[in-house]
Amino acid sequence: VEAGQRGMVLNLAADLHPADLALLMARLPTEQSHTAFSWLPDAQASEILLELSDSQRRDLLHTLQPERLRRLIDALDTDDAADVLSDMSDAQALHVLPDLADTHDVAALLEYDEESAGGIMAREFVSVPPEWTLEHVIEAVRQHASDIDDIYAVFVVGANDQLEGVVSLKDLMLAPADRPVRTVMDRDVITVGTDMDREEVARIMERYDLVSLPVVDATGGMVGRITIDDVVDVIREEAEEDIQIMSGGSGIEQPDDTVWAVSRGRLPWLLVGLFGAGLSGSVIGGFEVALEQAVVLATFIPIVTAMGGNVAVQSAAIAVQGLSSGDIWMDDLGRRILKEMGVALLNGIVLSLLLCSAVAVLNVGHVQLLIATLASTMLTVILVATTNGALVPFALKWLGIDPASAMGPFVTTLNDIIGLSIYFMYATLIYL
Amino acid sequence: VEAGQRGMVLNLAADLHPADLALLMARLPTEQSHTAFSWLPDAQASEILLELSDSQRRDLLHTLQPERLRRLIDALDTDDAADVLSDMSDAQALHVLPDLADTHDVAALLEYDEESAGGIMAREFVSVPPEWTLEHVIEAVRQHASDIDDIYAVFVVGANDQLEGVVSLKDLMLAPADRPVRTVMDRDVITVGTDMDREEVARIMERYDLVSLPVVDATGGMVGRITIDDVVDVIREEAEEDIQIMSGGSGIEQPDDTVWAVSRGRLPWLLVGLFGAGLSGSVIGGFEVALEQAVVLATFIPIVTAMGGNVAVQSAAIAVQGLSSGDIWMDDLGRRILKEMGVALLNGIVLSLLLCSAVAVLNVGHVQLLIATLASTMLTVILVATTNGALVPFALKWLGIDPASAMGPFVTTLNDIIGLSIYFMYATLIYL
Repeated sequence: VEAGQRGMVLNLAADLHPADLALLMARLPTEQSHTAFSWLPDAQASEILLELSDSQRRDLLHTLQPERLRRLIDALDTDDAADVLSDMSDAQALHVLPDLADTHDVAALLEYDEESAGGIMAREFVSVPPEWTLEHVIEAVRQHASDIDDIYAVFVVGANDQLEGVVSLKDLMLAPADRPVRTVMDRDVITVGTDMDREEVARIMERYDLVSLPVVDATGGMVGRITIDDVVDVIREEAEEDIQIMSGGSGIEQPDDTVWAVSRGRLPWLLVGLFGAGLSGSVIGGFEVALEQAVVLATFIPIVTAMGGNVAVQSAAIAVQGLSSGDIWMDDLGRRILKEMGVALLNGIVLSLLLCSAVAVLNVGHVQLLIATLASTMLTVILVATTNGALVPFALKWLGIDPASAMGPFVTTLNDIIGLSIYFMYATLIYL
Repeated sequence: VEAGQRGMVLNLAADLHPADLALLMARLPTEQSHTAFSWLPDAQASEILLELSDSQRRDLLHTLQPERLRRLIDALDTDDAADVLSDMSDAQALHVLPDLADTHDVAALLEYDEESAGGIMAREFVSVPPEWTLEHVIEAVRQHASDIDDIYAVFVVGANDQLEGVVSLKDLMLAPADRPVRTVMDRDVITVGTDMDREEVARIMERYDLVSLPVVDATGGMVGRITIDDVVDVIREEAEEDIQIMSGGSGIEQPDDTVWAVSRGRLPWLLVGLFGAGLSGSVIGGFEVALEQAVVLATFIPIVTAMGGNVAVQSAAIAVQGLSSGDIWMDDLGRRILKEMGVALLNGIVLSLLLCSAVAVLNVGHVQLLIATLASTMLTVILVATTNGALVPFALKWLGIDPASAMGPFVTTLNDIIGLSIYFMYATLIYL
């Protein structure tokens, strides 16, 4: 396709959704995708800018002329424009920003933290005074229809931008046109502040099934609104971030990052892991004399560490999930730990019985002493590790750290150290 | 509050959003929450049914009279009614179902798999023939406004329920009222089939920023629609499921499950873990003679298993995430593995250098041979484990298994076994 057939490409592109076009472009060699992009009309090109991954977008932005860039960004809603600008180099952004139609709004949005309500809101919304009639309001919607993509509701705003109510399009359409909007609007409006964490914003929209949420500043004046499509992206991104944090990644790794960036992002946790495993190793080293007397003890090292690690991660997972969805509160800690200890006791007994039966059948070492050592170790390790797993997410949340880290390498390593110490302690007391 | 003060409770409740009320009820002792629920008016009570967790809802449903239950379920949209019915015992559901106002629709919904588009769609939607004028269409919306909660768009449907187009409320409001809807509607409608997986549905709505998505049957006739609020719940639930699968949970554990249910859900993976760790142990056991000659080798067991496990989970995380979000395709396998090997080589060299320096400083065992053994082991294990981590999610997806399992206990255990085998092989070849 990319043999210079400009007309054909444009014809094909005209029928495609921007999201699909962006995907196609991502699969083309960089050179060709930039050429194709330069052919596209502004309206399509600006939509595609939004759909590209961060790194693709950054590459592409470098190739664009300031004049075209300005036109493309002007075609976007303010929140999307701010996102694109924040991906540019400072020099490029400063060059483009003053010439935009919405310079003031976009600059204001760039001030907010990207992780906050201010960072994901758009400045475009339809607001009307409370005394307007519905007919008047519909006229206002008509005027804004071309420059605001998604209108789900009209906000009724009094003196000093104070939000007084909200009317959905449905209600707007159904009530008699001569009624003042004041009498139709819903006064129970849920709002969020500009500095609320975007994850909290997502939780609120999800919980109250909102499609559009007004954002107010410190004085209660309305400054923007967040729509559900932005929040859907937030939920996905936060879930991905959690999964990466749990797996010892950087939390922001993207599939198309360079080898160098990926390597640097992952290395810190590997170093923590190496250091921790070194400590585990030194626990084993500390009992070298015991091991020399009974090398068979080494055989059970993987079982001790694996079981401790598995149960800790299981109990941490449910605590992390509950704390993040709001199903678990900070003051549930006591109850959770008691419950997890119940689970640990049940599963600990089953696993110990199985392990001890296997040892009895294989008849290794001084069987009876070995069984006593292993049974005590398994029960203690499973109880301690489960409790740790349930406790650590609460502790992290209390410290202001993402509870998802509780499932990462740091805590797993800690459990290995504790587990091995317990094992060799019992082994010294009982077996030797 | 629950000292029998019915009037006061109802006053308080009237001001609260159902989601908040459900949360309050969940914190009350079971008895009291059931009493409070029996006091609430039907309209509020039915909304609360939706907001409760599955197990709370199941408990509550048992206490309700069939007549009240019927009224509450009738007040719900068909998709929500089907959800509530599927939480009842079969006997109770069969008792209530035939008396519902929408018996036919609800029964039809219950036929679909809960994980499919059919399982999350609602049967309520506004559909009009293509020749109607907009005025006529608005009248239709007015008639449905009371029994359909969220109307974002009107579907234009021709002969045999064939979907011909869609009009958003915004467009409906803005075009002249005497135009036929045919001339205003958007003909490029994205639809999904009833049996599409709900995760795929979520991805489509997310990708194309849709708030409402029509569902069609095998003949192309429109049978329902899915709204964004349902999909937001799907995204959250699927993310939680992934996290649980990664951490060796059942995938469906809830914070308020009983100890017994939790224990049973977690045990299968622990058994897999125990069996796998037993195999790892037997690898160590197989080299018992080697260990007896040099107990110092045991010290490095945790480092070998921890490093292998960490790098595998890191590389699996990004593959799982990419496959689930659609950023990575099945045919990217070769490229991903090459890239991951690059990362593994870089990080492997850094980690080996660090470990070997530490060993050199501590001067343990036959230092030079030990360093040679460890450096070879680290590089090989990190390369192999990283490749495994990148490969397994693709293999699982190909087999139709959730790629998230790649980060669970099974694969971690497999890596331990491979890692330890490599370690003792090198140890025998180089160190002894």
